[in-house]
Amino acid sequence: MKVGILGGGQLGRMLLQAAANYDLTTYVLEKDPNCPAAHLCHHFTTGDILDYDTVYQFGKQLDALTIEIEAVNVAALEQLEKEGVKIFPTPAAIRTIKNKVTQKQFYATHEIPTAHFVITATAQDIHPHAGLLPAVHKIAEGGYDGKGVQIIENEKDIALGFNAPAVLESKVNIAKELALIVGMNAQGDTVIFPPAEMIFDPVYNLLDYQLSPAKIEEKQLWKAEAIARKIVQSLKSPGLFAIELFVDDKGDILVNETAPRVHNSGHHTIEANYSSQYDMLLRIILNYPLGNPAPILPSAIVNLIGADGYTGDVVYEGLDEVLKMENVFVHLYGKTTTKPGRKMGHVTIMNPDYIDLTHKANKIKHTLKVISK
Amino acid sequence: MKVGILGGGQLGRMLLQAAANYDLTTYVLEKDPNCPAAHLCHHFTTGDILDYDTVYQFGKQLDALTIEIEAVNVAALEQLEKEGVKIFPTPAAIRTIKNKVTQKQFYATHEIPTAHFVITATAQDIHPHAGLLPAVHKIAEGGYDGKGVQIIENEKDIALGFNAPAVLESKVNIAKELALIVGMNAQGDTVIFPPAEMIFDPVYNLLDYQLSPAKIEEKQLWKAEAIARKIVQSLKSPGLFAIELFVDDKGDILVNETAPRVHNSGHHTIEANYSSQYDMLLRIILNYPLGNPAPILPSAIVNLIGADGYTGDVVYEGLDEVLKMENVFVHLYGKTTTKPGRKMGHVTIMNPDYIDLTHKANKIKHTLKVISK
Repeated sequence: MKVGILGGGQLGRMLLQAAANYDLTTYVLEKDPNCPAAHLCHHFTTGDILDYDTVYQFGKQLDALTIEIEAVNVAALEQLEKEGVKIFPTPAAIRTIKNKVTQKQFYATHEIPTAHFVITATAQDIHPHAGLLPAVHKIAEGGYDGKGVQIIENEKDIALGFNAPAVLESKVNIAKELALIVGMNAQGDTVIFPPAEMIFDPVYNLLDYQLSPAKIEEKQLWKAEAIARKIVQSLKSPGLFAIELFVDDKGDILVNETAPRVHNSGHHTIEANYSSQYDMLLRIILNYPLGNPAPILPSAIVNLIGADGYTGDVVYEGLDEVLKMENVFVHLYGKTTTKPGRKMGHVTIMNPDYIDLTHKANKIKHTLKVISK
Repeated sequence: MKVGILGGGQLGRMLLQAAANYDLTTYVLEKDPNCPAAHLCHHFTTGDILDYDTVYQFGKQLDALTIEIEAVNVAALEQLEKEGVKIFPTPAAIRTIKNKVTQKQFYATHEIPTAHFVITATAQDIHPHAGLLPAVHKIAEGGYDGKGVQIIENEKDIALGFNAPAVLESKVNIAKELALIVGMNAQGDTVIFPPAEMIFDPVYNLLDYQLSPAKIEEKQLWKAEAIARKIVQSLKSPGLFAIELFVDDKGDILVNETAPRVHNSGHHTIEANYSSQYDMLLRIILNYPLGNPAPILPSAIVNLIGADGYTGDVVYEGLDEVLKMENVFVHLYGKTTTKPGRKMGHVTIMNPDYIDLTHKANKIKHTLKVISK
C-alpha cells in the first residue's frame, strides 16, 4: 500500500518511525528537504502542501493520504478523494476544522458543549458583544502555536482584536485542560485514549508538561469521552483526532479545539500505551483492527522548546543528565537550528507514581535546555 | 554526528527506527537497494559490505560505524579505525567472533566455560576425536541461520563433516538456552539485559519463540551474567553483544556463541524494556549515558518465518486476528518476497503472566502464516 503524508515535521517523523513496523510504502510532501521526516520515507517530494497542483500530483500516485498539519490544500484533497484516494481525515473534516469559525459553528450545530461565542469580521465587531468579555479572540485561519490568539480583557483591548474573520469566545474559568486522542476507522468504530492533563507555559502558550491518564472524576471522564466521541462521529471521518477540552470551575466540560491529526498531546502513547497514536492512525489507514489504547504505565511529557535568546545551530544542554534518569525516553526531532519557542523535541517519563512523574518532569524542565552554539 | 551501518536488513531497520529519537545523520551500506533499512536512513549507498574499497570509501566520510551482520570486510574497518573512525564493535572483536575457530579459542584463552572442542581442517580430522561424539561440527566461516552446522552423532556421520576449518564441539545435554544482551561503552562500563529463554524450531534451527526474563534460578542468573560480562570485557570492545548460553542437565552454564551486534533475541526490548537493545547501541555510539535495561513487563517474541512451500510476493495470513489481540506488537520487516525459512517479521507480546505469554505465543504461531500470492 502506498501511503503519503502532507507535511514533514516531527509528527510525520514519529508516524514514519511507527510505519516501519508494517509493510507499506511511504511518501512525504514538504517544502523543506531537511525536515525531520524527510529521510524516513521511501519517497520524498520537495513541494508546497498549500499548492493545488503540487498536492494533486503528489496524491494521485497514492492509495491513501494523511496530514500532519491542517494548513494543506483541501481543494486538491477533495479532487483526489473523488478519484478514489482514501484521505485520513476526509477533506470535509479538514475544511470544517482548519477554520476556527466553521469549527465553532460545527460544535454549535451538533450541540457539542463549547464556550459562548460570536463570529467577527473586524476588531470593531467586538463592541456589540462587550457582554462576552473577558474573551479570547481567535483568528479563523493561519493561527498556530499561540499565534492568532488575542485575549480581550475589556473594551480597551478591543483595538488589539483581529481585522479578519475570527471567533470571539467568552473566557472560560479553566480548572483543568484535557486532551483526548480519538481514532475512528472506515467502519465507524471509535477508540479513545485515556485523557492527558495539560499545563501550559504562560510565555509561549505552548504545552509545558502533561500527565496521563488525567486525574479526573469518573463522571468527568465519561463526559469528556462522550464529547470527544460525538465530535469525531459528527465529523463522519475516519482518522485520528486530538480533542482539547476545558474543565471549568463548575466542573463542566467544554471543547476548546479539535486537531484532525496526530498531536503533541499524544506523544507519550509511543512508550506508555500499548498502541501509540501513530500506530493507531496507521491501523486506520491500512484498515487493520484498531489497537489497544490502554496505558502500560502512567506517563508525563516534557516538551523541549527552543530557549529564549538563542537562535542558530542547536545544542542540547543537560542532555546527559536527563539520559541518565530512569524510565525516561528522549525524543529529539533532528532540527538543525533552534529559535525561541520552536518545538525541538520531547521527553516522556513513565512511572506508576504521579508524584515521581511530576518531580521528574520539573527536573527535566530545569535540566535540559535547547540553546545554540 | 555521522553514523553508518554495514548491512541493511531488519536489524538495521529497527536500529534506524530508534535512531530517529536522537539527533544524528545516518548512513547505510548494503547491496540490495530495496532492503528493509534502505529508506530509513539519511544516506543510502548500494554496495558490497564484503568489499574492501566499498567499505573503506563508505566509512571514511563517517564519525562512527556499526554492523548488523558479522560478514563484513574487517580489513577495511581496521584501516578506518586507524584513521580515527570509531567502530562498534572494534574490528578486532569482529575478527575474533566471526570465525568460529578463533571465537572458541578466545573462550578457552579467557577460561570462559564452553563445550569441549577440537579444531578440524577436514572431516577426516574428526576420527582421532571420536571420544567427543556425539558432537556438533561448525564451519569456521560462512555459517548462518543453521547452515554450516552438522550434527555428528557417531563415527558413521563423520563423512558428513566439513572439509574446511571447523570446530568439533561435544554435544551439550541442553536443559535450557538463554540469550543475554550486553552493552559496553567506551569507558568500559557494562550493562546487561535480563536473559531471554529460547525455544528453537527443529526444522529450520531458527528461534521459534522466546520468553524474557528467563525463569532461571538466581545462581544461574548470576553465573550467566558473569560469563556474559567477562566475554565482553575480554573482547575489550565497546558495542552491543548477544551472548547465547546453554544451561546443561547438571545446571552448568556454557557459552554457545557470541554475536557482536544487535540480535534477534533482543527484539522484545523495543517495547518491553525501558531502553531497547537498539537504543542502548545508539547511546554507546553517541557516547550518551547507558540506558536502563530493566523490563517494563515480561514478554515473548514469536518470529515470523517464511512458510514451507511458499516462495514469491509475501502475504501475511491471519494478520488481522493477531492485530486484534491485546498487548501484542507486530513488526513486519517490509521484505517484498518470502521463501521458506526467511525471517519476515516478529511479534512481541507483553504481559506480567507467563502463562498468558506462552498461550498467546502459541496462538500467534498457529494463526499468523507468512505465505505468498
